[in-house]
Amino acid sequence: MKKPKLQLALDQNSLPEAVAVAHLAGPIVDIVEVGTILELQAGQLAIQTMRKMLPDKMIVSDTKCADAGTTVAENSSKAGADLMTVIDSATQATMQAAKKVMLGIQVELYSAWDFKRAAKWLELGIDQVIYHQSRDALLAGKSWGEQDLTTVRQLIEMGFKVSVTGGLTLKTIPLFAGLAVETFIAGRAITGNSDVRAAAQAFQDKIIEHWGTNV
Amino acid sequence: MKKPKLQLALDQNSLPEAVAVAHLAGPIVDIVEVGTILELQAGQLAIQTMRKMLPDKMIVSDTKCADAGTTVAENSSKAGADLMTVIDSATQATMQAAKKVMLGIQVELYSAWDFKRAAKWLELGIDQVIYHQSRDALLAGKSWGEQDLTTVRQLIEMGFKVSVTGGLTLKTIPLFAGLAVETFIAGRAITGNSDVRAAAQAFQDKIIEHWGTNV
Repeated sequence: MKKPKLQLALDQNSLPEAVAVAHLAGPIVDIVEVGTILELQAGQLAIQTMRKMLPDKMIVSDTKCADAGTTVAENSSKAGADLMTVIDSATQATMQAAKKVMLGIQVELYSAWDFKRAAKWLELGIDQVIYHQSRDALLAGKSWGEQDLTTVRQLIEMGFKVSVTGGLTLKTIPLFAGLAVETFIAGRAITGNSDVRAAAQAFQDKIIEHWGTNV
Repeated sequence: MKKPKLQLALDQNSLPEAVAVAHLAGPIVDIVEVGTILELQAGQLAIQTMRKMLPDKMIVSDTKCADAGTTVAENSSKAGADLMTVIDSATQATMQAAKKVMLGIQVELYSAWDFKRAAKWLELGIDQVIYHQSRDALLAGKSWGEQDLTTVRQLIEMGFKVSVTGGLTLKTIPLFAGLAVETFIAGRAITGNSDVRAAAQAFQDKIIEHWGTNV
């Protein structure tokens, strides 16, 4: 089974803080995400900075685009992003517009989707989704369970490349063993450590332990 | 019936362009919105700029927040926004978190809502919604119809302050006559004119023509 990628979510409140983290952990991960919080704070300067700083990494613009798919995708693309997120409740028209501009469109699964709706995304050529525990749901005490894993499996079987995020730790990563997860996204589980470089490496090691190194 | 407010949506790709428009049309409108496109481009600097530039206007941070309600609301509030948008597919937990930080939370109605769901927002104390024709839907040829007006009426009767947006023009504003619309949001219908000041004034005049001047 292919090794899932490790994506570093940068959700700092300022670009200097994000750069400091990316400087250390960026070289270790596979994908660097300019998270929504950071992008709303620092704008496209954040994308441009990561693009220049880490030229060999995939860069995600986490816009959670809900409308104006063409413009948002053009702006993300111009700034140097390889991937962009759209929200599940965006219309088909918005998703299609974004997809025309940018190949790598990822649908964020919040509360506005079901498998029927997801099948339509595949028809548009959008085959990447992000399954997650909302941060606020996690704060309310919810965590990963069998139902989540079943849903992730079903999405993979439909043909989606599934990114998984929300409260992932070295303890929860093994729950997904045996599943062809495309990408694990970790934010504060990495950035909340005093040694973010070692924390990122520990995630990569844990992934390799369960999925091997084939890419 | 109370005069609906006029909200100027700034969706320029750069802050200088947005400032140029706000400089002329800002004093005429009731609310200035830092649109999602602009906020993703320029970050919170856009909110801070509008706050300082137009101290007596309401400022909207159009984050379409989907997660991390506390942080996004804190950042918008610190930058000077009075109102912030959340997406319909955000969880109740996210909306509640945002509402705890910022009184003025507006739910953007895309495809992830129904009246039952909306009733729960009211229970959280969130009584502002934004009903709109998506820009991409408009580009696909859809426009305002009887069904839209019926939905807006139902939301008002439920107790929502309803903002209306998407392809509004001087010709479509009168369609809402007799409805207690809270706010009309116009973007390119104002900013796409050579004289944006006159265009904003024409919107205000059209609203006053149908709703009067009571505020």
